[in-house]
Amino acid sequence: MGRVTTREKLLRVRDGAVSERVDTLVVEEPLEVRLDGEPLTVTMRTPGHDFDLAAGFLVSEGVVARSSDIAAIRYCAGAAEDGANTYNILDVAVAAGVALPEASLQRNFYTTSSCGLCGKASLEAVRTTSRWTVADDPVRIDHRAFAAMPERLRAAQRVFDRTGGLHAAGLFDAAGELLALREDVGRHNAVDKLVGWAVREDRLPLRGTALMVSGRASFELAQKAVMAGIPVLAAVSAPSSLAVGLAADAGLTLVGFLRGASMNVYAGRHRVVVERDAAAQAPATART
Amino acid sequence: MGRVTTREKLLRVRDGAVSERVDTLVVEEPLEVRLDGEPLTVTMRTPGHDFDLAAGFLVSEGVVARSSDIAAIRYCAGAAEDGANTYNILDVAVAAGVALPEASLQRNFYTTSSCGLCGKASLEAVRTTSRWTVADDPVRIDHRAFAAMPERLRAAQRVFDRTGGLHAAGLFDAAGELLALREDVGRHNAVDKLVGWAVREDRLPLRGTALMVSGRASFELAQKAVMAGIPVLAAVSAPSSLAVGLAADAGLTLVGFLRGASMNVYAGRHRVVVERDAAAQAPATART
Repeated sequence: MGRVTTREKLLRVRDGAVSERVDTLVVEEPLEVRLDGEPLTVTMRTPGHDFDLAAGFLVSEGVVARSSDIAAIRYCAGAAEDGANTYNILDVAVAAGVALPEASLQRNFYTTSSCGLCGKASLEAVRTTSRWTVADDPVRIDHRAFAAMPERLRAAQRVFDRTGGLHAAGLFDAAGELLALREDVGRHNAVDKLVGWAVREDRLPLRGTALMVSGRASFELAQKAVMAGIPVLAAVSAPSSLAVGLAADAGLTLVGFLRGASMNVYAGRHRVVVERDAAAQAPATART
Repeated sequence: MGRVTTREKLLRVRDGAVSERVDTLVVEEPLEVRLDGEPLTVTMRTPGHDFDLAAGFLVSEGVVARSSDIAAIRYCAGAAEDGANTYNILDVAVAAGVALPEASLQRNFYTTSSCGLCGKASLEAVRTTSRWTVADDPVRIDHRAFAAMPERLRAAQRVFDRTGGLHAAGLFDAAGELLALREDVGRHNAVDKLVGWAVREDRLPLRGTALMVSGRASFELAQKAVMAGIPVLAAVSAPSSLAVGLAADAGLTLVGFLRGASMNVYAGRHRVVVERDAAAQAPATART
């Protein structure tokens, strides 16, 4: 099994003065995911929770949605020339009756559109592929619960503090309590590991929860939330236009720039419980 | 042609008080790259410099290395149902004699290893695929030139200041002057756009230059530097273990946590010119 961190010698330069240091680095290794023996994808990832990563990737691609869809996951032994197991290749056997993806899946599933490739087609692909809707999820989350998420995510990030090099994805309940956390050198991998844990525990759709990510909110992260049935996505940094488009289209609540008590709500604002409307209150304050 | 930014209404929440705002978001749209008419890859990118993006991707994959390797690049008209050009699909025609990649390229080229999939195989793949070596590049860069790079990159980032959502890749000369800058919602895309600009200008290998990226230094970014003949990679944040491994293997100088006058040198330290050695000086100071 690969290690999550490694130690490396380095030269620290500060104002032209140099010193030798030893630093902790996050490990990055390739992982090949095979589906019923056929190569499906390769991702550069941080070793650990590999079965979750594979399962979560397959949820995002619409291949599996519950634990019984997966017959078995195993590392491919003997993949190396010397017969040793590198623990970098794994095979997912799906259950009888689970449809295998088309070959085009390797090029990302939102590419097979009849209307030409565009953002709209990407949204439509998620709409037609998702097994459930998040639009009707009645969960509402208090702004104070949102405000507590970044610190709780950070506190639970055991590896991050040592390397500064890992992305985190956290799953929270409506009260802002952390349900699970996964870390990876890649943003998408961290979310896949989280969703893969959930599908293997048969928790999909993840109704009533919020997914928080340490970086930006891209289309692909919003897609992963919707495919897992998560009604709320919160990110430390900015969302992209297409992430906002997907959130609006799918009924996903999208929060960006979540930093302490400050946050921007780009879509699905009805799920964010606030105390007062500043715009409505401002005139009242002026009148006193 | 797609826009780089878009305006979106949002709800600002601060300490429970809400207000309506309009914010600038970075645009994200899918781009399909075809090679001689065959679909090669799809990436979610920020529109703009698309030809550079495609050309740079092909440099990273070892398909092209000079401008004459590319016969033509064009958007595929009529890709949409109504015959309109979405400007999201483009085709690269390579020159006669340029070998097309194997089908496995779609799964990333470092996957086709005979020794099982591992970091070592990934390093070897770069070693055997690269057209040139960076190990013998004699360039040396003063620590003050490094220290000036982040601010120069930021100052040149026209879009970033408006959205907070774009990654930047900058190419610098040995004096720390910015030669070119590209931005994208994706880290890899920003570097591909930069390298694609260079190959189309027939500037490869980019000897004597430094590539600076706004995020972390992953294996793939180090790989892109080596494939473009760039001898120095500097990143604002942490490198991964495999990025350091590739740098040491290929003779690439790798600088991480480059923030003002402070930086960590993980590989190729002989190219970083410093004034004094703190470790050597410390005893001298103690003696006074």
